[in-house]
Amino acid sequence: MFKKRENIKEVEEGEYLAPKFDENGLIPVVTTDFRSRDILMHGYMNAEALRKTIETKEAHYWSRSRKKIWYKGEASGFVQVVKEIRIDDDQDCVWLSVDIGKGASCHVGYRSCFYRSVPLGKIENTEKLKINFKEKEKIFDPKKVYKNKPNPTKL
Amino acid sequence: MFKKRENIKEVEEGEYLAPKFDENGLIPVVTTDFRSRDILMHGYMNAEALRKTIETKEAHYWSRSRKKIWYKGEASGFVQVVKEIRIDDDQDCVWLSVDIGKGASCHVGYRSCFYRSVPLGKIENTEKLKINFKEKEKIFDPKKVYKNKPNPTKL
Repeated sequence: MFKKRENIKEVEEGEYLAPKFDENGLIPVVTTDFRSRDILMHGYMNAEALRKTIETKEAHYWSRSRKKIWYKGEASGFVQVVKEIRIDDDQDCVWLSVDIGKGASCHVGYRSCFYRSVPLGKIENTEKLKINFKEKEKIFDPKKVYKNKPNPTKL
Repeated sequence: MFKKRENIKEVEEGEYLAPKFDENGLIPVVTTDFRSRDILMHGYMNAEALRKTIETKEAHYWSRSRKKIWYKGEASGFVQVVKEIRIDDDQDCVWLSVDIGKGASCHVGYRSCFYRSVPLGKIENTEKLKINFKEKEKIFDPKKVYKNKPNPTKL
């Protein structure tokens, strides 16, 4: 669908979008809040999700758990309005900068999926490395929003 | 090495680091500039790279092209001093916030790997979708810095 990747110079410094999809047809996507610039989530797109996102200016991903195009916000209502899309040097990763208003991005209910931080420095016991909550309050109650939908988190 | 992932509640809302490594033993990592908050790069870590990064407070990745631990800056001198590490809801992605001073992160020579943006809206010809350079000047000359090292970009 997109331009064929023909040589490295063109991919890195050329003027055309020529994204690299992996063996499953997916490209990783990092989504940030265009106001706070926090990372909200990390997901994946196939070529169709990328095309839809560019054209509709609303984020579409590939749901690896449901194996289908995932229009972000279809269940929660928290649509992501795309302000900018960037592509990286070797065109194997997409950066979306989005507006989610006062909404949330994380299925657990927090604004960002990255609500916990890992302490830096010498680790005493790797199996018991405590992490700290940086977001204290959920934006929504996932039980009310998702009702009986399966949890996308896998062990 | 890290805590075993025993149940979803613990992974999502528990107090211990229990990262999920994929079938290749890797976890995706997004690295941002702690000052500008731009995304600098997207890479991968194995468990050992994650442990080293936490303990040394300098970014270590897994190089998929060279198949070894990659101490960022070992060739270029552009070390990434880690200011914060976050983990996401299902603990399958790491966010590093780093200090690179006036250095660069991208092997092509730009400060961020994400130096091109994709125009939004209706696409006339998907195979010829022009992208725009947002960074105009390189921080360093890759030919001088990397000399004869192989280019990590793959077609």
